Amino acid sequence: MVDRAVPTNLPGPAPAGERMKIAFLGPFGTFCEQAVWQVAPTRSDLLPMPSVGQALAAVRRGEADRAVVPIENSVEGGVNATIDELSHGSSLVIVAEMLVPVAFAFGVLPGTKQEDIHAVGTHPHAWAQCRHWVEAHYPNVIHVPTASTAAAPEILTSVEDVPFQAVLCSKPSAKLFELEVLADDVADNPGAVTRFVMVSREGDIPPATGADKTTVQVRLPDNEAGALLTMLEQFSARGVNLSRIESRPSGNGLGSYSFSIDIEGHVREERIQAALVGLHRTCPEVKFLGSYPRVDGVRPNIRPGTTDEDFASARAWIEKILG
Amino acid sequence: MVDRAVPTNLPGPAPAGERMKIAFLGPFGTFCEQAVWQVAPTRSDLLPMPSVGQALAAVRRGEADRAVVPIENSVEGGVNATIDELSHGSSLVIVAEMLVPVAFAFGVLPGTKQEDIHAVGTHPHAWAQCRHWVEAHYPNVIHVPTASTAAAPEILTSVEDVPFQAVLCSKPSAKLFELEVLADDVADNPGAVTRFVMVSREGDIPPATGADKTTVQVRLPDNEAGALLTMLEQFSARGVNLSRIESRPSGNGLGSYSFSIDIEGHVREERIQAALVGLHRTCPEVKFLGSYPRVDGVRPNIRPGTTDEDFASARAWIEKILG
Amino acid sequence: MVDRAVPTNLPGPAPAGERMKIAFLGPFGTFCEQAVWQVAPTRSDLLPMPSVGQALAAVRRGEADRAVVPIENSVEGGVNATIDELSHGSSLVIVAEMLVPVAFAFGVLPGTKQEDIHAVGTHPHAWAQCRHWVEAHYPNVIHVPTASTAAAPEILTSVEDVPFQAVLCSKPSAKLFELEVLADDVADNPGAVTRFVMVSREGDIPPATGADKTTVQVRLPDNEAGALLTMLEQFSARGVNLSRIESRPSGNGLGSYSFSIDIEGHVREERIQAALVGLHRTCPEVKFLGSYPRVDGVRPNIRPGTTDEDFASARAWIEKILG
Amino acid sequence: MVDRAVPTNLPGPAPAGERMKIAFLGPFGTFCEQAVWQVAPTRSDLLPMPSVGQALAAVRRGEADRAVVPIENSVEGGVNATIDELSHGSSLVIVAEMLVPVAFAFGVLPGTKQEDIHAVGTHPHAWAQCRHWVEAHYPNVIHVPTASTAAAPEILTSVEDVPFQAVLCSKPSAKLFELEVLADDVADNPGAVTRFVMVSREGDIPPATGADKTTVQVRLPDNEAGALLTMLEQFSARGVNLSRIESRPSGNGLGSYSFSIDIEGHVREERIQAALVGLHRTCPEVKFLGSYPRVDGVRPNIRPGTTDEDFASARAWIEKILG
Repeated sequence: MVDRAVPTNLPGPAPAGERMKIAFLGPFGTFCEQAVWQVAPTRSDLLPMPSVGQALAAVRRGEADRAVVPIENSVEGGVNATIDELSHGSSLVIVAEMLVPVAFAFGVLPGTKQEDIHAVGTHPHAWAQCRHWVEAHYPNVIHVPTASTAAAPEILTSVEDVPFQAVLCSKPSAKLFELEVLADDVADNPGAVTRFVMVSREGDIPPATGADKTTVQVRLPDNEAGALLTMLEQFSARGVNLSRIESRPSGNGLGSYSFSIDIEGHVREERIQAALVGLHRTCPEVKFLGSYPRVDGVRPNIRPGTTDEDFASARAWIEKILG
Repeated sequence: MVDRAVPTNLPGPAPAGERMKIAFLGPFGTFCEQAVWQVAPTRSDLLPMPSVGQALAAVRRGEADRAVVPIENSVEGGVNATIDELSHGSSLVIVAEMLVPVAFAFGVLPGTKQEDIHAVGTHPHAWAQCRHWVEAHYPNVIHVPTASTAAAPEILTSVEDVPFQAVLCSKPSAKLFELEVLADDVADNPGAVTRFVMVSREGDIPPATGADKTTVQVRLPDNEAGALLTMLEQFSARGVNLSRIESRPSGNGLGSYSFSIDIEGHVREERIQAALVGLHRTCPEVKFLGSYPRVDGVRPNIRPGTTDEDFASARAWIEKILG
Repeated sequence: MVDRAVPTNLPGPAPAGERMKIAFLGPFGTFCEQAVWQVAPTRSDLLPMPSVGQALAAVRRGEADRAVVPIENSVEGGVNATIDELSHGSSLVIVAEMLVPVAFAFGVLPGTKQEDIHAVGTHPHAWAQCRHWVEAHYPNVIHVPTASTAAAPEILTSVEDVPFQAVLCSKPSAKLFELEVLADDVADNPGAVTRFVMVSREGDIPPATGADKTTVQVRLPDNEAGALLTMLEQFSARGVNLSRIESRPSGNGLGSYSFSIDIEGHVREERIQAALVGLHRTCPEVKFLGSYPRVDGVRPNIRPGTTDEDFASARAWIEKILG
Repeated sequence: MVDRAVPTNLPGPAPAGERMKIAFLGPFGTFCEQAVWQVAPTRSDLLPMPSVGQALAAVRRGEADRAVVPIENSVEGGVNATIDELSHGSSLVIVAEMLVPVAFAFGVLPGTKQEDIHAVGTHPHAWAQCRHWVEAHYPNVIHVPTASTAAAPEILTSVEDVPFQAVLCSKPSAKLFELEVLADDVADNPGAVTRFVMVSREGDIPPATGADKTTVQVRLPDNEAGALLTMLEQFSARGVNLSRIESRPSGNGLGSYSFSIDIEGHVREERIQAALVGLHRTCPEVKFLGSYPRVDGVRPNIRPGTTDEDFASARAWIEKILG
C-alpha cells in the first residue's frame, strides 16, 4: 500500500473522497509500477497482482477501482495475456495509456565474478529484449525464466542453490535488493518502450480531447477470403486510420483469427461511430475496449468529408429528402 | 388531350378529383406516348412537348403534374438531354420507370418503288438502331435527321420536295399517316428496349416495395486519382449494388465528370441512406433524383449485415457504449 | 482533295514518297477538318466522309491511310458512334489526338431580319452546345437538325422553302457560304472543346513520349455486383490513373455495359502492361485501341513502386528465388 | 542421436548417401520432437537445441541440414521467436509444415498428495493453454516457468527443494521421467494444435503439389494510412487468399509493423508471382520464406482469370499488341 503526494489528472470518475485502489502486474519494482505512477491520483492504494488476469479480475470483482497492465512492447509486440484477458469475460475498458522506457540493470550478488555467471534469471520478455547484449558480453550463458523481472532479484537473494547467477531487472529492483549492477541501460534496441494501459469498468469513457485512441477487438468471419480487406474498408470508407492492428488466434483452431485494433479517434466522434457500426454489421463479434487520450498527444489527420459537421450535414440532407 | 379508361397504379400522390396533366416528349405516335400509357391514371391529359427540356420545365413551372421522358436505351445508352436536364435547375424526382420495346416500321408513301428510295428520314437515335438493317436492304441510302421519329412521317406526307422517300417510325405513327409499311419490326438488335421515366416534383417519393431503384447524380472531385474507386467503395462498404453507372462531362472542360447512377434499393432503406451519407460527405455534389419501383420487379440481393435491423442493432450497440 | 504546305510531325509510319490519304467526318468546313490540319503531313489528300462509320471503314478497307473523327466533347460527352465503331469490326488504333475549340457562328442569308428567324438549322451536338444562348437571344425559335454543322449553311443557301432561317456552323463555313454573321463565338460553355482522334490500322503504335494515353474498351462480366470496382482495382493495384471512363451499353440489353477508358501511360510501359494483363484475365473482353501522345503534354504522376525499373527489379527478385 | 526405420517423403534434396542432421527445439520428449518424426527420413540424426535461434543458426552455419521449430499454435498465436529469427540474418526457407495435437500430462512424483500441490512447473506457452483447467482443479496453485515443457519433469525429478510439485509436460516426457500422471489430455481448448515447420537453406523449394503455402515477411511503409489495405489489395487483385496474417513490431518503435503472411499457393504459380512482384514494388521490404506443401492438403479455390493459362494468354495478347 503506497501513498503519493503529487496530484495528477487521472482519467475517469474518481471515487469521491475515497482512496483509489489500483491493481497492477506486480511485484513492486517492475516497470508496471512505474507506469502506475504516471497516472495514479494523490490518494491511491497500489495492489500488486501475480498476473495480468488477476489484476483485471480484481477490477471485475470490484476489489480494485483500476488495473494497470502492459499491453504492447516495441520489441515483442502485443502482450497476449492482456489482449486476450480484456476480450473475454465481462467488459472492461481502457481509460488511459502510458509509455515506460525499457532498459534493464544486469545485476549480481555483490562479489560475483564474471566467469561464475552461467545463467541469467529474468522474465522471458526481458530476455527477448536483451539476449543479443547477453550473447555479446556473456557468450554461452543460458536463460532461466522467472515469473516477472522483479522476481529474479528476489529469488537470487533469497533462495539457496538458485540456478542463475545474474539477473536482468529494473534499476529500482536492483537497488531494492542491493545487487551489484554490472551494466546499466541494457537493451538490444535503444529506445525500446513498453506501453501500459489503465483499465476501468465498462461505461467509463474519458471525454474526447482531439487526440484519442479507441481500442476494439474484432473477430472476422471464418474462412472467408478477403474478410480482412473488407473489414479494413469499413475504416477507409470513413477516413479512419489505425495505429495498431494485431492478429490473435480466436481459439477456434488454426486459421481463425481475431484482431486487436487501435483506432485514431474517440467513440464520441461521428466517423468512429460510423466505422464501428460498419464493423458491428459485418463481423461476427466486435468488442469495445475503450476510448482514451493518446499519451503522445498526436492528433489524427481528419480527412475532408469526415468531420462531425460533414456527417451532420449529410444526415440533414437525407432528412430533407425523406420530408 | 387524351382520356383513358383503364385504371392503373400510378405512383405518387394523384391530384384528388382532378385530371392529371402529363407532359411527354411528343408528338403523339412516338414510343414515349406508349410509355405514358403504361402508368397514366384513368383521368389524364397528355401534353406533347417538343423537347425533353420543355417537358421537364412544364413540371417545374406547375403546368404539368408529371413528365414522361426517355432516359436510356439498350443500344445508344443514356439519353444525354434527360440526364443533364434532370441534374440542373430546381429538383425533380423520378417516381416510376417503364420499358418500351423498340422496333420500327419502314414506311413509304403508297406506291413508292424500291429504286426510288435514296434517303430515309428519322430521328438520329432511331437511325443508330437500324442503320445496319438499312445498309443491308438499301445500300447507299443516306440518313436525313428529323426532330423525332414521329416528325418523319408527318414531314413525308405534308411537305413538298421532301429530301427523303422513306421513314423509320413507330408502327402507330406509320398507320396514323397511312404509309405503306415495307418492313415491320426493323431493329439491328432484336430485343432492344428504351427505358422511360415518369418525373414529378421534389418530395414525391413512392413507398418502398422491396424492389426499388434510387437514382443519383454525383460529381467527383476534379483531377483526383482514384476518385471513382473511392466513390464506388462508399457503395460496397454498405453492400449496395449499382444497376447503371454512366459518366457525363460535368461541363468544366474535358476530364471533369459527373456520374449518373441507379442504385438497387430505396432511400427509406438504411443501407441506401448510409451510402448516400458517404457520398454527400466525400463528393462535391450529390443530387437525389428519386426512389421508385423497378419495372422488372427484381429484388436486390441484400448481403448479410446490411438489413435495416443490422443497422438498428449496430446503432443501439453504440448508444449503449455511450451510456 | 486538298494539299498542304506546312510539314508536321505526323505520328505513325507515313507511306514513303506517297501522298497520305486521310478520311474525315466531312464535309469540308466542319471542325473535323480543322482537326485534320493539326496533324496532316505536307502531302495529304483529304477525303470527306458522310459518317464516322464510313470514315473508319475507308481505313479498314485500305482506301485511306488514316481517319480523323470526333471522340469526345466537353459538353455532350463521348461521341457514341465513334466509340462504338472503333470497338467493333477489325481492329483500328488511335495514333494521335487533337483538340479543337468549339464556338459557332450564328449566320443568316444577308438581309434576314431578326423577327423572321423562327428556326435554326444545325447538327444536334451543336444545338446542345448553343441552346441556352439561342433561348436567351431568340426565344421561341426551334431547332431543325441537319446531318452536320456544315450541311446547314449549304442547305440554307441552296434549297428552296428551307424550314429554317438561321444556322449555327463553324466560322469558315459561314464565310464559305457568304452568310451574314449575326454573332460570333456562340457557345453556352466558353472554353468548350471537341477532342478528335486520328486512327490507323492495327499494329501502328507511336513511340512512348512520357506523356501518353492508352485507350481500351472493356466489357464487364454481366450482372456481377462490384465488377466495376474490381476492374478499377486492376488499375489502382499498379498505380495507374484514368483520364476518361465512359459507359456504353454492350448491346446485350439494359444493364449490360462496356467501358471506354483512357489510361494515363503507354502500352510500352510496364505498369500499363501489368494493368492490361489484369483486365485481360478478369474481363470477358478487352480491346486495345491505341497508345499515343497526349495533346496536352501532361506527364503522369508515376507513383513510387511503379516505374519500369521497379517492375524489372521485382521480377529479377522472383527469378532469383526460383533459382 | 536417433535413428529411424520408417522411410518418409522428406521434401527437399536429401544429402545422398549421408545421414540427415535435423536440429530441433529440444530437449527430447517435447512436442517438437514429435513433429520431427512426421517428416524425418530413415537415416536422420536429431540435434536437440536449447532455443529456436540456435536451431536455425545450426542450419545457417551448415552444422545441420534442417531445423524443425514451432511457428504457431492455435491458442497463443504465432511463435514470436521463430517468426522473428526467420526474418533476420541470411535466408532460410520453410520446406514442410507439420501439425501436432497439443494435450498435456499433469504429472507428479509418485505418491504426491493433492493437497501438497502449490505450484506447477511448465513452459509459459503450456501454462497459457492449461491455466483454466488448473484453476478449476487446483485453485490457488501458481505457475513456475521452465525453459521448455520437457525441462519441468527433468527439474522435478533431479533438483532438490524444487519450487513446484507438479508439471505439465508431454505424455512421453511424463513416462520417460516415471511420473505419476494425475490427468491425461489436459488442454483448455480440446483440439488445440501446434504447427511446426521444417526449415532448410535458401534455394530449397519443394515442387508445387497444387495444395501449397508460401510464407513471406512484409514490412509496411511507416506511418502511411491505408498501407495495410493497399498491401492486401496486391493479393486481391490477383485473386490470392491468405491463410494467416500476423503483425510483428518491426523493431523501429511502437507503431511500426511487419506482417508475417501465409499465402495459399506456390511461388511457381503465376498469380503468386504477380502478387509478390506487387509487394516487392510497393513495400520497403519483402522476405521470401518458402513454398511448401500444406499439411492439410487443402487446395486453394482458384478464381476465374487467375490460372497460369490466364496469365500466359494475357501476356501473349500484350506481345501481339507490341508486335
